[in-house]
Amino acid sequence: MSNMDQECLKYQKLYNWAHTLITSGVIKNMDKFPSEPSLQKKFGYSRQTVRTALQKLEEEGLVTRVRGSGTYVSYDCSKVNEERPQVGLLLSYYSDYLFPRVYDGIESCLTEKGYAIEVAVTKNRLNDEAIYLEGILKGDVSGLIIEGSRSAFPNPNIRLYKEIKRRNIPTLFIHNHYENMVFDSVEMSDKKCSYELTKLLIENGHRRIGGIFKYDDMQGIERYKGFIQCLSDYGVKFDDDYIRWYSTKDMEEKLSKKGLLRMYRRTKDCTAMIVYNDEVANYYMDFLEERGLHVPEDVSLVSFDDAELLDANNGAQLVSAIHPKYQLGRITAKNLLRMMEDEKWQEKNYSYRFPVKIKEGNSIQKIGR
Amino acid sequence: MSNMDQECLKYQKLYNWAHTLITSGVIKNMDKFPSEPSLQKKFGYSRQTVRTALQKLEEEGLVTRVRGSGTYVSYDCSKVNEERPQVGLLLSYYSDYLFPRVYDGIESCLTEKGYAIEVAVTKNRLNDEAIYLEGILKGDVSGLIIEGSRSAFPNPNIRLYKEIKRRNIPTLFIHNHYENMVFDSVEMSDKKCSYELTKLLIENGHRRIGGIFKYDDMQGIERYKGFIQCLSDYGVKFDDDYIRWYSTKDMEEKLSKKGLLRMYRRTKDCTAMIVYNDEVANYYMDFLEERGLHVPEDVSLVSFDDAELLDANNGAQLVSAIHPKYQLGRITAKNLLRMMEDEKWQEKNYSYRFPVKIKEGNSIQKIGR
Repeated sequence: MSNMDQECLKYQKLYNWAHTLITSGVIKNMDKFPSEPSLQKKFGYSRQTVRTALQKLEEEGLVTRVRGSGTYVSYDCSKVNEERPQVGLLLSYYSDYLFPRVYDGIESCLTEKGYAIEVAVTKNRLNDEAIYLEGILKGDVSGLIIEGSRSAFPNPNIRLYKEIKRRNIPTLFIHNHYENMVFDSVEMSDKKCSYELTKLLIENGHRRIGGIFKYDDMQGIERYKGFIQCLSDYGVKFDDDYIRWYSTKDMEEKLSKKGLLRMYRRTKDCTAMIVYNDEVANYYMDFLEERGLHVPEDVSLVSFDDAELLDANNGAQLVSAIHPKYQLGRITAKNLLRMMEDEKWQEKNYSYRFPVKIKEGNSIQKIGR
Repeated sequence: MSNMDQECLKYQKLYNWAHTLITSGVIKNMDKFPSEPSLQKKFGYSRQTVRTALQKLEEEGLVTRVRGSGTYVSYDCSKVNEERPQVGLLLSYYSDYLFPRVYDGIESCLTEKGYAIEVAVTKNRLNDEAIYLEGILKGDVSGLIIEGSRSAFPNPNIRLYKEIKRRNIPTLFIHNHYENMVFDSVEMSDKKCSYELTKLLIENGHRRIGGIFKYDDMQGIERYKGFIQCLSDYGVKFDDDYIRWYSTKDMEEKLSKKGLLRMYRRTKDCTAMIVYNDEVANYYMDFLEERGLHVPEDVSLVSFDDAELLDANNGAQLVSAIHPKYQLGRITAKNLLRMMEDEKWQEKNYSYRFPVKIKEGNSIQKIGR
């Protein structure tokens, strides 16, 4: 791919992300839009790329720049949606690199049927989850799509979820679910994907395999489960020093250079690493590169999500469990529509798990046993 | 209680703890015994109290002091036990303030029947758990009592636990259990106890209730579950800023003065706190006292375990869910004996949960609604 193509791709990704955030109502009319420097940092893009994307948004009237103050959203999606029946979409993150594709999948299906989507973001905080759920219960939604906050922990908003059940509001979880309440969910097969990735490493001769996992969402715990199950089945020794954990709260610190250095020091005997997702993989590869280390020559790396964003940045083609993104959004919306059309939805099962799909790459080195 | 009595009590507690550690084989012959300063710090006792206890141990020949080097264990429990059938006891901590009482309960029952107990301690590390389990599987034990390491997380030593099942070794968990494997367990009713403690606070008018919980053992998660369930049932608002979490790894930091200050700052609007156990309660009360704050006038406090150790240190009589300690040890040993006498134990249920018992105290202030 030429440099020009790569810049084009980056600009397009950033534009798409921002466009989705604004038109979906994740960032609302009059809200401040993230600053140029913060976008540069978040995406690792040049100032020029960020500027070009912002310019296009301004031309389309989605944002307005106020000299000396910043960029503001100038699009009111609630007006557009006024007359249509609503589906509530509660997400834990919007900075999530998968969000635009998942949203497109949901939206493509629901708007066709005349529904408007009311989006809210909890930033993985349970207080915010409570506030949005209360808001939703005061309003009038036909259905709900929810990504659980801190889903690895028992959820304290039990009362609100019970009320959702009581009112018979069709509800589907995406990406995860809570152990202390029963709702159907549409998810990738996190545990199975992790099992297959670990198996790939073992089949390529790796025996000292480290991991970086997130402990406050269910995806992290499921990915850990697949990993330990596979090690156990193949008789490969588990070493808890090789396992590093992080959470939403300490993410910034743990994935800082200092934090990554600490992780690296504990896992430097590992010939391979499995990491929570491509975002972490990207940080980790950048960190390794700065130390003059290479994937897969110095360490093999496997990951989750297949966030296409990353390949443009890096020579390595990461072996990664494919997150169904758009398809996940589509199936969630389709199943929710079926639930909304069926008064007896509570007696049926609308859960779905995607089959395992691994993206091939060159990030695994075969080593002698 | 007079000062003299208190000193006596402290000296006796320390002596009992050390005596149990040595005769049970938690600290083995020739091992270094904790230093005077570290014992002073651990128990918060005076140098004189620690010295008196060590002197008594030396007089009984359980330890030997080597000038300029330290104190060493001089008691070989493996010789004593040579000819007797073995029961393996795997614990996560020995510094645990409940350990001597629980051990006494187990021992009183098993020695009566001619069994020797082989003790090992994992310090909540999964690697150590694997090493000890492997050792046990190489030897010849008649039964196993296990306190799970990092029991809130799926356990990676699956292969070893499967082998224990395959060999039909009667096994009981104490204090907790793993979600990803099926063994019977003897536990206090952590969730129910927590529910009742929270209810007490609510009945006394408290609405802003904070909590300090441990997230890497099942007890912590169960205590959190009871807390959030009770808040939800009584319609009391949950605030995730009021909840602080710690783990084995960051315990020292989180319960340091700096760490407690950070916890206090986030929860200072709370009129009441529920904390993971009496050890944390003790640290927290000391911290409050230094700031000139009092329990219950400034903040009501409830806790778990009823570790008798604490009352001597503090004016406040802590309201605490009573851990059955000795009784828990007795029932575990009794049930294990029944399992060992029954070849078909796998088809039956030897789990036991103790009924809720709350120790009364003066650590809850009634407040107006």
